[in-house]
Amino acid sequence: VAAACCWAACPASLPAKVVILGGGVVGTNAAAMALGLGADVTILEKSTDRMEELVARFGTQLKTVYSTQGAVEDECAEADLVIGGVLIPGAAAPKLVTKKMLPTWKKGSVLVDVAIDQGGCAETSKATTHANPTYEVDGVIHYCVANMPGGVARTSTYALNNVTLPFGLAIANKGWKKALADDAHLRNGLNVAGGKVTYKAVADDLGYAYVPADKVIG
Amino acid sequence: VAAACCWAACPASLPAKVVILGGGVVGTNAAAMALGLGADVTILEKSTDRMEELVARFGTQLKTVYSTQGAVEDECAEADLVIGGVLIPGAAAPKLVTKKMLPTWKKGSVLVDVAIDQGGCAETSKATTHANPTYEVDGVIHYCVANMPGGVARTSTYALNNVTLPFGLAIANKGWKKALADDAHLRNGLNVAGGKVTYKAVADDLGYAYVPADKVIG
Amino acid sequence: VAAACCWAACPASLPAKVVILGGGVVGTNAAAMALGLGADVTILEKSTDRMEELVARFGTQLKTVYSTQGAVEDECAEADLVIGGVLIPGAAAPKLVTKKMLPTWKKGSVLVDVAIDQGGCAETSKATTHANPTYEVDGVIHYCVANMPGGVARTSTYALNNVTLPFGLAIANKGWKKALADDAHLRNGLNVAGGKVTYKAVADDLGYAYVPADKVIG
Amino acid sequence: VAAACCWAACPASLPAKVVILGGGVVGTNAAAMALGLGADVTILEKSTDRMEELVARFGTQLKTVYSTQGAVEDECAEADLVIGGVLIPGAAAPKLVTKKMLPTWKKGSVLVDVAIDQGGCAETSKATTHANPTYEVDGVIHYCVANMPGGVARTSTYALNNVTLPFGLAIANKGWKKALADDAHLRNGLNVAGGKVTYKAVADDLGYAYVPADKVIG
Amino acid sequence: VAAACCWAACPASLPAKVVILGGGVVGTNAAAMALGLGADVTILEKSTDRMEELVARFGTQLKTVYSTQGAVEDECAEADLVIGGVLIPGAAAPKLVTKKMLPTWKKGSVLVDVAIDQGGCAETSKATTHANPTYEVDGVIHYCVANMPGGVARTSTYALNNVTLPFGLAIANKGWKKALADDAHLRNGLNVAGGKVTYKAVADDLGYAYVPADKVIG
Amino acid sequence: VAAACCWAACPASLPAKVVILGGGVVGTNAAAMALGLGADVTILEKSTDRMEELVARFGTQLKTVYSTQGAVEDECAEADLVIGGVLIPGAAAPKLVTKKMLPTWKKGSVLVDVAIDQGGCAETSKATTHANPTYEVDGVIHYCVANMPGGVARTSTYALNNVTLPFGLAIANKGWKKALADDAHLRNGLNVAGGKVTYKAVADDLGYAYVPADKVIG
Repeated sequence: VAAACCWAACPASLPAKVVILGGGVVGTNAAAMALGLGADVTILEKSTDRMEELVARFGTQLKTVYSTQGAVEDECAEADLVIGGVLIPGAAAPKLVTKKMLPTWKKGSVLVDVAIDQGGCAETSKATTHANPTYEVDGVIHYCVANMPGGVARTSTYALNNVTLPFGLAIANKGWKKALADDAHLRNGLNVAGGKVTYKAVADDLGYAYVPADKVIG
Repeated sequence: VAAACCWAACPASLPAKVVILGGGVVGTNAAAMALGLGADVTILEKSTDRMEELVARFGTQLKTVYSTQGAVEDECAEADLVIGGVLIPGAAAPKLVTKKMLPTWKKGSVLVDVAIDQGGCAETSKATTHANPTYEVDGVIHYCVANMPGGVARTSTYALNNVTLPFGLAIANKGWKKALADDAHLRNGLNVAGGKVTYKAVADDLGYAYVPADKVIG
Repeated sequence: VAAACCWAACPASLPAKVVILGGGVVGTNAAAMALGLGADVTILEKSTDRMEELVARFGTQLKTVYSTQGAVEDECAEADLVIGGVLIPGAAAPKLVTKKMLPTWKKGSVLVDVAIDQGGCAETSKATTHANPTYEVDGVIHYCVANMPGGVARTSTYALNNVTLPFGLAIANKGWKKALADDAHLRNGLNVAGGKVTYKAVADDLGYAYVPADKVIG
Repeated sequence: VAAACCWAACPASLPAKVVILGGGVVGTNAAAMALGLGADVTILEKSTDRMEELVARFGTQLKTVYSTQGAVEDECAEADLVIGGVLIPGAAAPKLVTKKMLPTWKKGSVLVDVAIDQGGCAETSKATTHANPTYEVDGVIHYCVANMPGGVARTSTYALNNVTLPFGLAIANKGWKKALADDAHLRNGLNVAGGKVTYKAVADDLGYAYVPADKVIG
Repeated sequence: VAAACCWAACPASLPAKVVILGGGVVGTNAAAMALGLGADVTILEKSTDRMEELVARFGTQLKTVYSTQGAVEDECAEADLVIGGVLIPGAAAPKLVTKKMLPTWKKGSVLVDVAIDQGGCAETSKATTHANPTYEVDGVIHYCVANMPGGVARTSTYALNNVTLPFGLAIANKGWKKALADDAHLRNGLNVAGGKVTYKAVADDLGYAYVPADKVIG
Repeated sequence: VAAACCWAACPASLPAKVVILGGGVVGTNAAAMALGLGADVTILEKSTDRMEELVARFGTQLKTVYSTQGAVEDECAEADLVIGGVLIPGAAAPKLVTKKMLPTWKKGSVLVDVAIDQGGCAETSKATTHANPTYEVDGVIHYCVANMPGGVARTSTYALNNVTLPFGLAIANKGWKKALADDAHLRNGLNVAGGKVTYKAVADDLGYAYVPADKVIG
């Protein structure tokens, strides 16, 4: 991150090139900060609706590209920093960055794999810690700290609290069955109940039978 | 210019890359419009003060690079559109783009040489007309129309009028000698008087003796 | 478009006035580019929700007006450029610009009718070609090239590919009936099947009986 | 000012049109606020350098026009609000708005003459008070409160203090003669000393002999 | 509002601090204008989705905070201006600002309670008029004019007309029963019909039996 | 810096408050980056001209305050991060932050003293190294690494090269005396020549006699 200190301050040099895989929550906020520091930022995304939203928010300052294997290869090969933010809720992250790509990347470039808590979106990603956060593969520095939000404990706590408190209150006031019956969002969050796996992606991924939440609450 | 119609409209494709040689009046306005259309714009410039001004105006959306021969080669080789706006008032434009560079450019890329009225800033530039504006060299389309502002006659007339009218009024009211004596800007504009060349760059370039304007007005 | 070259560059003159009929995809992207070039841009639109989205994206720099016949008359009479982008998917475009309006427009103003592929949104519009793109009616230059995206072939191809490829893959992998049964968006795109017209606007417009897509797939 | 409350909030209506005479300190800050509220703002200015600075700061969102009598007439006739901010330091403000223009203005439009402390820039301006701030001429509401900054006493005090305190300290520490001798800006502010008028515009305007400040300090 | 005149114009002083309760239509437009005038603006809001939309529109220039009683207390105590825009359609506004909070606020700060038409969102709010708009409680100036849009009659009329005209036309053309049957939005607007209260919040609030609109339309 | 990762991403929490002492090169670029990350940024500055430039560049998003001892005390006491960027070229930095202020600051707040190479602008600052960069005084973490640009070696090298190369070429081509005689900027950079101190601030600070550069070159 030290290198970031001069992105905005050095008009005589080209800005760092940041490539972000996935335009969801992780990718959008990474883009906001990288653009804020003056980087040249490209997001690879498959949803054209999402791309329209990104353009509406950031204007043409942000580059958005339809994500294909070819686009991942071309963009990452020129990047100073690649941020992996491709998550499929509850399932293993897809391996967009293969081992074979790395030798084509710039020496000393950095891969931050935010998808590491779901297994990572690079074949070469393995979880690291805040104490020992990085390792190198083919000249590419990997930063794959598990539970990254844990590094900013205070802000994470507020953020998590704000969105979960209403659910907690509902469960406490109504009991869990009625709370889930009344609120589809809370019901969607049910993973296991009465010995049944009620979250489809988890059931599929781990080889269990899937039972819809409604059946269990009934 | 037709291709511009989709720069802003196609979030799924990378924007066109525009490289501008020189960050003066021509380059700044070209940058304003290219950025407005959503292009990826880089200005090559030698003055760090000028680069600071460009960053203050356009923010980090505009890339600015210190102009060296290497930077011209690297940037132009990746450009879809190169705009030459390097002018040395009164003197021949420097030939920043050499004949040897062109084969390294993208096929079908475009060079707009706004410096053509001073001889052009590419070795391969030669003046063309609005009727027959382009020609091709090594796969690079050259647009080198002499007197480009003539293509937007109404706006050019207003622009020119606004800045020259005060000088015309001063000359009419005071006579030329007093008008020039009173106003350094007008005096700086004197090229020839009493058979003497009073503009240094012109005198040097054409091999005449240079006589400062003060001497002639005296 | 030549005139655009000085919009941003001439602070001493008023910007060109661009009026856009319809704030959908065509109108929004036309607005983005016209604003980017420094024009004074007004969109006429009937949906207040859409107007809110436009204000959220462009801020107060873009003028939005509720579209009535009176507003169309007033705004177009002062415009340098009118862009017609009012499309009703599958049906003929409404004739917002009548023949009687044209004499009130500025001489030499330009009408670009992007709705021409659906019949145009001006009574005086008729399809032209890239080879011979314009004609004049009552001093207003009409640009009504059919299939305008064909003029920027490379970008159009990428744009179209990105959004249609997933459908093509689904049809190839599942067969057309199952692909349409699984995906409401694809099903909505079905126009004719088994001799039945399955797209309501087309059926209504051409006088055929309408059969919902579900019935045909069944 | 009440009308301003809906400028930004009503995407269905055209914004108010604000015309500002003069692009100096008054005009620039008036423009900043009017643009901030979503108005359609035009500044009339004679200095092309100043117009460039305004464009660099506000972008193309602000319209700038070269100020001629014709431009003043045309722009004011369409305005909802005209702000007069044309000041010649120490001298009477020029009468850009003549009595004959007013009948061509919109009924109910407003003229705020910030130049009133120097006599006003409209022929029909005469000083009013915060208690009784407005009067009407030919359907145009005139707001010509003398010493307008007095209406925002706290902010004005801070603003004035910050810029004048260093001068006060210098005079207190060095004595007035040495303080003025050391600082050209302070010296420029000397109006009268030893019975001589040392400010040229005041001397010329009131018919006194002008004595440069240096002579008096000597 | 006079104080606003120097927000943008005085770089040497801190901007006014504006706190907005609720990020809906009222709060968003209040924020747009306060930001436009250069104020330091914070919105308190309970919906994280809405907060995301606000950040997407205004960027990080707008501060958004999750609304808790503690946050209301902390933010309002430092504000120069508090705007109450918390409305629950058809029901009494919640009393976010209690009588006990006021003594902790800055002396001379201002509370504008836009929710006054639903009873106000401060315990100390009571409706005032344009003729006599303010009163003071514990040093806090309350502005609680009922029907604030009535103060900008022309703009309000256009705004209201644009959104209600299509409903009026539908009722006139189809009769009220069919018009309501065809359009869920219009049906949602039905308050009373055939002696039954068909709007739930009103029925609950006033102690009447609630009958869904569908039942009445039959 | 880790905390920065959530500034832009957490609309539900207030942004970090960054206070910057001095609006020169260090302060301006620190502000650009902190604003880019979504922080609430205030610059304390004594030059009103400089404040105008900062407002013109950053708009009202940046807070600027006239720097007095009181303002430094008030602002720093509420800051999460204080950046000291007050440099007097060639002389010791003024001690704006006194030892007595620190206990009033937030526990865990951070002071980055970029002025450390000139002695630092806090009484408690002492130079540290990249290996061991921080220490704590009264709960305030001090980051006072000497030669901070050395941490971003590649960018610093380019930046330095671009501005110094023209001087090096001039000295090589003309000899140092003529190069300095021809160029006031280069001459201003002369510190010591022929045993004389030719830089006034250094001479004053270290107690040597000052000899103007012209005298030595002559």
